[in-house]
Amino acid sequence: MLQPNPYDVLFEEVQIGPVTAPNRFYQVPHACGMGHLRPQAHAAMREVKALGGWGVVCTEETEIHPSSDLSPYSEQRLWDERDIPALSLMVEAVKRHGALVGIELVHNGHMASNLFSRLPALAPADIQLDDGYPRMARRMDKSDIRELRRWHRRAARNAKAAGFDIIYVYAGHDMAVPQHFLLPRYNQRSDEYGGSLENRARLIRELLSETKDEVGDRCAVALRLGLDERMGADGMQAHEEGRAVVELLADIPDLWDVNVSNWQNDTVSTRFEPDEGYEVDQMRFVREVTGKPTVGVGRFTSPDLMVRLVRGGVLDLIGAARPSIADPYLPNKIAEGRTDAIRECIGCNICASSDKLGVPIRCTQNPTMGEEWRRGWHPESIAQRASDAEVLVVGAGPAGLECALQLGRRGYRVSVAEATGEFGGRSLRESGLKGLTAWRRVADNRLYELSQMANVRLYRESPMSAGDIVETESAAVFLATGARWRGDGTGRTHFRPVQGLSDIAVFTPDDVMAGNLPVGPVVIYDDDQGYMGGVIADHLAGKSLAVTFVTTASIVSPFTTLTLEQHRIQSSLIAAGVKLVLSSKLVAAGRGTVSTADIYGGSRDEIACTGLVLVTARDIDRSLSAALKREAPDLCVETIGDALAPGLIADATFSGHLAARNFESDVLETEAAIYRREMPALPAVNTL
Amino acid sequence: MLQPNPYDVLFEEVQIGPVTAPNRFYQVPHACGMGHLRPQAHAAMREVKALGGWGVVCTEETEIHPSSDLSPYSEQRLWDERDIPALSLMVEAVKRHGALVGIELVHNGHMASNLFSRLPALAPADIQLDDGYPRMARRMDKSDIRELRRWHRRAARNAKAAGFDIIYVYAGHDMAVPQHFLLPRYNQRSDEYGGSLENRARLIRELLSETKDEVGDRCAVALRLGLDERMGADGMQAHEEGRAVVELLADIPDLWDVNVSNWQNDTVSTRFEPDEGYEVDQMRFVREVTGKPTVGVGRFTSPDLMVRLVRGGVLDLIGAARPSIADPYLPNKIAEGRTDAIRECIGCNICASSDKLGVPIRCTQNPTMGEEWRRGWHPESIAQRASDAEVLVVGAGPAGLECALQLGRRGYRVSVAEATGEFGGRSLRESGLKGLTAWRRVADNRLYELSQMANVRLYRESPMSAGDIVETESAAVFLATGARWRGDGTGRTHFRPVQGLSDIAVFTPDDVMAGNLPVGPVVIYDDDQGYMGGVIADHLAGKSLAVTFVTTASIVSPFTTLTLEQHRIQSSLIAAGVKLVLSSKLVAAGRGTVSTADIYGGSRDEIACTGLVLVTARDIDRSLSAALKREAPDLCVETIGDALAPGLIADATFSGHLAARNFESDVLETEAAIYRREMPALPAVNTL
Repeated sequence: MLQPNPYDVLFEEVQIGPVTAPNRFYQVPHACGMGHLRPQAHAAMREVKALGGWGVVCTEETEIHPSSDLSPYSEQRLWDERDIPALSLMVEAVKRHGALVGIELVHNGHMASNLFSRLPALAPADIQLDDGYPRMARRMDKSDIRELRRWHRRAARNAKAAGFDIIYVYAGHDMAVPQHFLLPRYNQRSDEYGGSLENRARLIRELLSETKDEVGDRCAVALRLGLDERMGADGMQAHEEGRAVVELLADIPDLWDVNVSNWQNDTVSTRFEPDEGYEVDQMRFVREVTGKPTVGVGRFTSPDLMVRLVRGGVLDLIGAARPSIADPYLPNKIAEGRTDAIRECIGCNICASSDKLGVPIRCTQNPTMGEEWRRGWHPESIAQRASDAEVLVVGAGPAGLECALQLGRRGYRVSVAEATGEFGGRSLRESGLKGLTAWRRVADNRLYELSQMANVRLYRESPMSAGDIVETESAAVFLATGARWRGDGTGRTHFRPVQGLSDIAVFTPDDVMAGNLPVGPVVIYDDDQGYMGGVIADHLAGKSLAVTFVTTASIVSPFTTLTLEQHRIQSSLIAAGVKLVLSSKLVAAGRGTVSTADIYGGSRDEIACTGLVLVTARDIDRSLSAALKREAPDLCVETIGDALAPGLIADATFSGHLAARNFESDVLETEAAIYRREMPALPAVNTL
Repeated sequence: MLQPNPYDVLFEEVQIGPVTAPNRFYQVPHACGMGHLRPQAHAAMREVKALGGWGVVCTEETEIHPSSDLSPYSEQRLWDERDIPALSLMVEAVKRHGALVGIELVHNGHMASNLFSRLPALAPADIQLDDGYPRMARRMDKSDIRELRRWHRRAARNAKAAGFDIIYVYAGHDMAVPQHFLLPRYNQRSDEYGGSLENRARLIRELLSETKDEVGDRCAVALRLGLDERMGADGMQAHEEGRAVVELLADIPDLWDVNVSNWQNDTVSTRFEPDEGYEVDQMRFVREVTGKPTVGVGRFTSPDLMVRLVRGGVLDLIGAARPSIADPYLPNKIAEGRTDAIRECIGCNICASSDKLGVPIRCTQNPTMGEEWRRGWHPESIAQRASDAEVLVVGAGPAGLECALQLGRRGYRVSVAEATGEFGGRSLRESGLKGLTAWRRVADNRLYELSQMANVRLYRESPMSAGDIVETESAAVFLATGARWRGDGTGRTHFRPVQGLSDIAVFTPDDVMAGNLPVGPVVIYDDDQGYMGGVIADHLAGKSLAVTFVTTASIVSPFTTLTLEQHRIQSSLIAAGVKLVLSSKLVAAGRGTVSTADIYGGSRDEIACTGLVLVTARDIDRSLSAALKREAPDLCVETIGDALAPGLIADATFSGHLAARNFESDVLETEAAIYRREMPALPAVNTL
């Protein structure tokens, strides 16, 4: 007899207004960098979520009018009827698999700069655009509010026509006008939309009512609300007005989708919120107050926690953005009792970075994410092997493990030779640094999967020379030997080695990861500008070293703005006593000192220190591939991951995955995928 | 008998390899933010240049392969044959008017991050991507170089198929691989592509030869080369290797398109290069050395200078990007002896900002720029009036003057009432600040045009009350009364007034522009983050005041990164002795002091000063429009420019232009234009 699944409760249907979710797994609206520019890619990506068992799958933000124009960022659009066909692609793709499909209608107010439409932005008051473009949003008058309601109603009607089941009113993440009206710092109006909470919530109430009136016969109407801004008394607090708003509007929405505002506070990286469920305390009251279906998020991947939240009456639906990106098949895996196989989100926020960069979503853990349409990749299936070839992967870091895993899934006999005593490479090494513990999941997940495969063998302490490789008689070799941080100061700023480095104790991130730490006052020089410099500073400050952080950037770790971490990082370094020297380059080093220069004014400074950590650029050792080319010119050799081009771990897992997919595949199709993209429609009558 | 045109030499034909330019006016390749995402808008914009008399009209950068993927920026693409139809739209549009059409093929190397294609970037060495994404470009091996040459050849073939007359090899602005190979800081190779200048120029030579081989029978092949990097001995210098490269390759290209590298040095604002022709000294030798047709730029708008450059044997073709944006009809106006009517570029670089923002080009002087396709606007023609209505414009700043000008062109009888003694409003006031002299051209050009119109009357010193306006019996009123800088500290950071401002002498930019200057040590608090704060600091430092510049941004005037000025601005303030306090907010003011707090760490600081200039947000006085609504509820009143939503001068001229175009126009068409955009093609078989 089959064991009862302890997680059965997660697979119960949930009635949401006039529609019924087939289970409790709910992919909340999340950005993906595809949007209106890439409707086919978008539909294919959302379809995989439905295939993987998510009972509800939503869009990202969907602009309802050109006065909420987020260009150049590509979110969804439902400006008018012409957007219906593109959105219908997604609707059709998701519903095909029995899931409900939701759309997050949004007017972004002063968070939209309208750089394409050129319309004045709209806000409760005359306030500046959020993005730094020196233009102000216009205080909405009564006719503006009427117009906004008309646009929202029209968008709801069009969303229904496109086939959506759940239609949102969005008032969260500090990104939407209805929330801006709610917040006293923006809303100091003296009319019936300002003053009391009831007045400030009037626009939300109107939008909810009008949306229900327009589409409520067939569609559920959801309210997505930021309950708490994590600003203390300077902003909304869940136990104060957050709760009061929920009480005020309790009966109106068919579904409450609640979270913490803003995006930085909702989508926190594991570096700053290592545990899942970090928003539960703020949302605990909503279900009880409203009695309505409630969904919330918090990087949930543990089915036990999910069951507790449902049984405890906190949530009816388990919301997810990042866990559904890292593993679109998370629900199916729970249903099938394969919880060990869940590819757990590492909370690195590379997914968020792609949206902020305006390009399709990527994921460190799930390299198929964003490639569903262009390359036809699926997270759980892959073409079977084309031959009986035995293959060798040299290096068991993120690229090597991913490559071996996918080659193994394809059925090849794979050997993995790792030079050191441990598997995991960079993801393991970096996970020893302060804040990056979760990054070892990149290795853990793959090592678990590989341990289930009879056709893949991993070897520790197996450095390979070209001769060793030739002796294995492998049909193909994948070199995933990684990169090392440079110790000569070359990087973005210096193209030749920095003078005087032999006079001071120089360290690199590799030294720090290996436990080889400086002893005295230390200068960290960050010319990489990624996340590593700030991590090293935090790590060394945590060892009670006196740290001065010198960087060519004007802020600490500017790349982490894209992963929503930058403000927290710079604040935490200051709190840890790290001294910051910004917009400065290293000029020279000497005995007990380094010299820096301001990159604008050129003024020099001397900093006394006994150690210097260089976080500049990385170096590739190509001697093995060169030797192979000499000794076995006909051997099929492919370099992957950091050994090909040092980048993020996400770049490495993608590279490893790509190589495994492409191995012995149709070359024409592989080449065609490089060029595949969505292109603008041209006039029907091209006179040429 | 007609006078001979003194500028006839500018209208001579120029033979360029196998093609003939109809005159010497040459729109060099320039970015426009339209690119592959907006091919119809792009074609329409370039067509207007051809209509206006430019003998050659070029594209912007055109990516030749997915490994040169500039996403999310939208430049042109010629990755493969599928891009031909979109590019053909432009070819057809330009050639229809007798101009030659050129295409700038480019491989951007490590300046392209390949965020969409995800391919490793390519460079002469393993160096970091330029944009801050923490990934490194890959050192090109011999097969990479062969591939790049193959891609370039294919792109040239496809460009010819699309109908282009001039096909570029691009080695300029620090943006292209062929130039990166040329520069020793990037190229430290020891193979035949590194070392000697001949070796470093090998790739350019190969690309030129192969392009000529592929398309030279019918197309001219141009080389766009950065001759000087303005870095002294740290970079290429025109009198050193710059000249040597030209000597080395002299005979190969059909056309030399020469300039100064990088983009910041080529496209300098009037704030830092007030005079046109600022690159002439660097390019003077090229024509003499090569004997080939030569084109160069330098914000040329003076036909006398153009004639001197041609007669002096410096240039054969007068290159222009910005002057052709500000006035697409510049050549025709010179031909017709209407040089007074040239709408002269003010060198504000808002055109560049739109490309860097990823949205269609705009221009302070020419509000039709970028709206040719979406709104059907033309810089020199406009629909005639729909009635005999007499209209009133209140305020003679950028929005008011532009609105009056276009209403006048439409044939309406227009009165302009200006409250002060001078016409020009903000453009005039700001032109009194250090570095912004050229901004008065916004007023000068319009006042000249208006002076030619019998149907427009301008009145100075005519403040208007609602009663005054009603008395004019105007059929419509346009309120262009501008905005004032706030004096209470509210802005991006503070939503309520800052404490203690009554205890210190507070100034705003309006005070400074009016000559009401602080006397003692002064703090400038910039929470606007546009250009104004830095200008005020420069202005006051120029008056020998001790200036401390406090800003919530991490750099001075971050918006000016988009106008290519930021580095110069911050450097010049430091050189002028301005003390910078970055990433800090104003907390309070008191007698002889202000308090600031670091926005990351919260640490407080006190700065002694006797004056405080607040550059925060702007305020709109809506009393006139409110009074009109009360006293003349049926009067047609439209608010425009800063009075509608304070922004850039470019926003104001656009707003004034839009109002004039839309006045008494077809409402359906006006509304439709708000929604018009180019959208991706959907699958031919939509199963829905």
